[in-house]
Amino acid sequence: MKPKVGVIMGSDSDLPVMKEAAEILDKFEVEYELTVVSAHRTPDRLYNYAETAEEKGLDVIIAGAGGAAHLPGMVAAVTTVPVVGVPVKTSKLSGLDSLYSIVQMPPGVPVATVAINGAKNAALLAVQILARSDEELNQKQKEYRREMKEKVLDTAEKLEEQGYQEYFERSEKFAD
Amino acid sequence: MKPKVGVIMGSDSDLPVMKEAAEILDKFEVEYELTVVSAHRTPDRLYNYAETAEEKGLDVIIAGAGGAAHLPGMVAAVTTVPVVGVPVKTSKLSGLDSLYSIVQMPPGVPVATVAINGAKNAALLAVQILARSDEELNQKQKEYRREMKEKVLDTAEKLEEQGYQEYFERSEKFAD
Amino acid sequence: MKPKVGVIMGSDSDLPVMKEAAEILDKFEVEYELTVVSAHRTPDRLYNYAETAEEKGLDVIIAGAGGAAHLPGMVAAVTTVPVVGVPVKTSKLSGLDSLYSIVQMPPGVPVATVAINGAKNAALLAVQILARSDEELNQKQKEYRREMKEKVLDTAEKLEEQGYQEYFERSEKFAD
Amino acid sequence: MKPKVGVIMGSDSDLPVMKEAAEILDKFEVEYELTVVSAHRTPDRLYNYAETAEEKGLDVIIAGAGGAAHLPGMVAAVTTVPVVGVPVKTSKLSGLDSLYSIVQMPPGVPVATVAINGAKNAALLAVQILARSDEELNQKQKEYRREMKEKVLDTAEKLEEQGYQEYFERSEKFAD
Amino acid sequence: MKPKVGVIMGSDSDLPVMKEAAEILDKFEVEYELTVVSAHRTPDRLYNYAETAEEKGLDVIIAGAGGAAHLPGMVAAVTTVPVVGVPVKTSKLSGLDSLYSIVQMPPGVPVATVAINGAKNAALLAVQILARSDEELNQKQKEYRREMKEKVLDTAEKLEEQGYQEYFERSEKFAD
Amino acid sequence: MKPKVGVIMGSDSDLPVMKEAAEILDKFEVEYELTVVSAHRTPDRLYNYAETAEEKGLDVIIAGAGGAAHLPGMVAAVTTVPVVGVPVKTSKLSGLDSLYSIVQMPPGVPVATVAINGAKNAALLAVQILARSDEELNQKQKEYRREMKEKVLDTAEKLEEQGYQEYFERSEKFAD
Amino acid sequence: MKPKVGVIMGSDSDLPVMKEAAEILDKFEVEYELTVVSAHRTPDRLYNYAETAEEKGLDVIIAGAGGAAHLPGMVAAVTTVPVVGVPVKTSKLSGLDSLYSIVQMPPGVPVATVAINGAKNAALLAVQILARSDEELNQKQKEYRREMKEKVLDTAEKLEEQGYQEYFERSEKFAD
Amino acid sequence: MKPKVGVIMGSDSDLPVMKEAAEILDKFEVEYELTVVSAHRTPDRLYNYAETAEEKGLDVIIAGAGGAAHLPGMVAAVTTVPVVGVPVKTSKLSGLDSLYSIVQMPPGVPVATVAINGAKNAALLAVQILARSDEELNQKQKEYRREMKEKVLDTAEKLEEQGYQEYFERSEKFAD
Repeated sequence: MKPKVGVIMGSDSDLPVMKEAAEILDKFEVEYELTVVSAHRTPDRLYNYAETAEEKGLDVIIAGAGGAAHLPGMVAAVTTVPVVGVPVKTSKLSGLDSLYSIVQMPPGVPVATVAINGAKNAALLAVQILARSDEELNQKQKEYRREMKEKVLDTAEKLEEQGYQEYFERSEKFAD
Repeated sequence: MKPKVGVIMGSDSDLPVMKEAAEILDKFEVEYELTVVSAHRTPDRLYNYAETAEEKGLDVIIAGAGGAAHLPGMVAAVTTVPVVGVPVKTSKLSGLDSLYSIVQMPPGVPVATVAINGAKNAALLAVQILARSDEELNQKQKEYRREMKEKVLDTAEKLEEQGYQEYFERSEKFAD
Repeated sequence: MKPKVGVIMGSDSDLPVMKEAAEILDKFEVEYELTVVSAHRTPDRLYNYAETAEEKGLDVIIAGAGGAAHLPGMVAAVTTVPVVGVPVKTSKLSGLDSLYSIVQMPPGVPVATVAINGAKNAALLAVQILARSDEELNQKQKEYRREMKEKVLDTAEKLEEQGYQEYFERSEKFAD
Repeated sequence: MKPKVGVIMGSDSDLPVMKEAAEILDKFEVEYELTVVSAHRTPDRLYNYAETAEEKGLDVIIAGAGGAAHLPGMVAAVTTVPVVGVPVKTSKLSGLDSLYSIVQMPPGVPVATVAINGAKNAALLAVQILARSDEELNQKQKEYRREMKEKVLDTAEKLEEQGYQEYFERSEKFAD
Repeated sequence: MKPKVGVIMGSDSDLPVMKEAAEILDKFEVEYELTVVSAHRTPDRLYNYAETAEEKGLDVIIAGAGGAAHLPGMVAAVTTVPVVGVPVKTSKLSGLDSLYSIVQMPPGVPVATVAINGAKNAALLAVQILARSDEELNQKQKEYRREMKEKVLDTAEKLEEQGYQEYFERSEKFAD
Repeated sequence: MKPKVGVIMGSDSDLPVMKEAAEILDKFEVEYELTVVSAHRTPDRLYNYAETAEEKGLDVIIAGAGGAAHLPGMVAAVTTVPVVGVPVKTSKLSGLDSLYSIVQMPPGVPVATVAINGAKNAALLAVQILARSDEELNQKQKEYRREMKEKVLDTAEKLEEQGYQEYFERSEKFAD
Repeated sequence: MKPKVGVIMGSDSDLPVMKEAAEILDKFEVEYELTVVSAHRTPDRLYNYAETAEEKGLDVIIAGAGGAAHLPGMVAAVTTVPVVGVPVKTSKLSGLDSLYSIVQMPPGVPVATVAINGAKNAALLAVQILARSDEELNQKQKEYRREMKEKVLDTAEKLEEQGYQEYFERSEKFAD
Repeated sequence: MKPKVGVIMGSDSDLPVMKEAAEILDKFEVEYELTVVSAHRTPDRLYNYAETAEEKGLDVIIAGAGGAAHLPGMVAAVTTVPVVGVPVKTSKLSGLDSLYSIVQMPPGVPVATVAINGAKNAALLAVQILARSDEELNQKQKEYRREMKEKVLDTAEKLEEQGYQEYFERSEKFAD
């Protein structure tokens, strides 16, 4: 099947963050493609990628980048397919530079920005967008929410039963 | 026709910012509803709004708020309809508080965040999302991009012809 | 006895920080309950928790959360029981996001915010509030202050006697 | 009647902000005293004020200050009466200096910090604390919340009826 | 004569800032062209501009932009002609977003960044670069420095002679 | 008499801030000289000024500058006379750039930094330093403190007598 | 001999930073006393310390503190002996909270602030102040500067001789 | 051959960052000299270095410094040779202090600022400047760009072929 989501990143050093997007898309069985597109080292590739995105059938593009993070905004400038931007944490300014570079887009060209290193949420947002016209996917994401909620309720129950001291010691032990 | 987009804001003091979203939706002839929902003063209204959003037929919710801006994230917690968050500029921390409160969502519940006061882009993002399954709207947004581009080219041409001094003086005069 | 203080947190990953609140309440023999309530993954649980807080007899709620930290503010929106908010340090923005999300509440709904990771002070603040109508607890907190002061005076005395070099070397050794 | 709340500020230049606290206390018919206590220009007065607060019958102290805002924290160091700190906005660092100076208290001495310029919420927090042992006041604050909610619902209704354009134009006119 | 410097900006709203660059180039009689190139609204124009810059004979490109300021970095990605970036002050984040977006370029593609709104210095930097192979221009910039220094010495002399009070009153008067 | 304090600033545009230092020195009858020394436009003047400071009899140098504020630190690098640095507020980064440039000196060369625009305190610090070996000046500064305290007590008394409403209205009236 | 400099810190956890001040004073053979004074846990001790400082013969007080760092400012409020403030780095806000709390003092009460963790420079500033009336100390500090300069020149010479690669490898080896 | 580029740094502790500039210049076979010049510990050396730079034949000076980073700006004040400033990351403020101190230069004296720790880009910028009048160097830098691009394309190809999981695991293994 043709991919519906494109997951791109400025460098393979962003992969530890961006693979969380892929994992969510795998889990929801959404077709996607994943590759490296560097705004600054391969500007022509960026241009081609964005220009052909719609005809290739992409419905959402997830773009992650760090520092002077121009990838999401420039892709959004070339295509009208919705772009979700993931500000990747940097060692110097903690990703604040990435966040500002991605979220502060001028009127006319939006980028849907998620949290710093928020690749998982970027994929969930893509699922939400696709689910608007895919009822099966919509049911899946509701099920996902239910499971998420159940896990919190389980945690709460355990913590209440065991008390914070025992719970804390056990979790310390498991962390070893 | 039933609204496809819900535009909500924490207070009517956010209207000067948020009406730009309405203006874009008007321009694109997208049906929407617009109202005030306060996370902190009407939390039950927030819950009801979010819980009934999907059955009412909303495909996107645009939520604007300032300061400890909990509206977009809490709506996103209750519904799986995509939520676009608009951080409204505040007089004290310039909207940085709004931005952090909206964009830094935890894994599991995304908010598609746009720039501080970026209500116009929030609406354009809604249009991009709807356009995925509405070819007419898709053509409209491409036309919109073309016009936007034309305006820049016109500006560039005038500026080149007149030179910066004449252009600057004229624009100063028109600003009076 | 019925708990007078509710200690809640957005995730069990906040427990290493929030258990300091429990330890203080234990020390002061204040009854409390402690559990996990996630604003974004269990919004209905949040609502129920806050709505029943007063009838359950809670006089103070201590709520800790990180990132887009909506838990304290949303609980405060649903109940009129005083809410003490603990901004939990985050790996990306050092807890500045948590702090802004908690402290910058709009007029009408206060959250009593303490320092980043300040769970201990949150509990001491709860003690101060309860002590207004509990003279025994009031005496306890004064005794606590006296002990705190004594420890500083002891430290000062030792440091003055030993000189900074010997004192520093000894403390280095004990840290091993 | 003896005042239950002390409202103090570092300078009379803080009065435009801090009078909002007094207005709320007036509205709730809570007895209070209001004066100027400067941490840096009258340190002895600060000590005396804090040291006699409890015997004078104060149950809450609201302290507002800007810049290197030491007033709330130093009062909290001398008394065990709960202290609510109001970071006053400054012309240079927008009140970020005030916020950090007030909220980042060390373990052992809490200050219940509200938003920058959040004097209104400081008073509402004082009301919440007093209401724990004053059922009449408790009912008043619930009524206050109800009214607050009603105002939002009225606003929402008007905005929905008139549409955003008419509503915006009317509010512009009234602002003149 | 063919222009040696290209002065571009993201929008004509940047002209009040960017015209200071033009004024310096006029003063030094350096040939330049000045126009609008929007990274986000005219990405193809950006590509063309950058790609043809060298063959057109440009030796320096001065690019000013605000917010998610991608223009300087993307031009620098397409050409190897040196790019001087001017972060334009924004109403929301004071130009910090512009600064981070421009200066935090990844290894491989530099942008020579000047101060927020520092268009004048951008032009002086262009002059410094051109002066490396143009002795006449080199002499001009040294003369410019001398004049700049003379003005400071004149100011200092007047201030010393008149005393600060008289000097201050006179300058107040002239400012009317 | 020979000046004991040198007051210098990077530009006469800093005079509205820096004249507050002169006014304090006038009030305390401390001899001083005041002039403009620009680190960047007159680096040789900076060197000469700093190099001759001690032999001229200066005991303190007060240096104010904004932006990349190198004046105080470079003067401190050339002389061992104590240098008090005044970070001047800037229109772009509110003086945070000035503050960081002045206060973050490397080990070996200190600058005694005061608040943003804190020229008055810079002069009071100079008085404190001179007063260590000038008992008359020491008595003057204690008297100054007493007066400062008296003013606060007067303000407090008036505010308590009139109540905040009357006091506020009167001060509003006087502000007209 | 009686101490001329008082070195105080809010907690013995500040000793690793503050001992650098003591080391400099030892090196310059300046008499000093060093102890712990906590603004928040021992406010009366703070008051006494500051009030008796001058009669004890202290000419400079060096005060280090972190977070809501009130120690330097409150000491400065009680005495007119010059106070040098050292903002201690914190684990949450990197010492920015400490810096703002110390440097942003209101007009009337100065604190001579040095860099974050700048205890060494605090002591050098104390030496500069004392040296104004102690020619022997003045000569010592000039000698100290000369040595500091010599070390840089030695380093430069070695680096130039060895080349950066060899120099870098050698320094790596010595670091093992 | 005479060096065309001067690479200087405030301390040999900056060498791990600044040697990346040297490595690029080595790669491009550009003659350079590299040494330590401390603005604060050797101000006269700074002055001499900058004053003789042009007659020595330097066409670009690369200056790296951290904290109150005055080296690049002061060198730029003394010479008209273009100065590229490298803000070195600091342990306290992450290099934000270095960045502000270097980039926020006043009108009249530019410093071409690169990213925090961006020494590699500083050298590439120097190459771009020299390449304006050295066609061989110009070809080299274009070749360098091509190689950079090829590496990205290779990475992209591998990532696409292997899939993100295999690619990630392999790179993890190689990192061991």
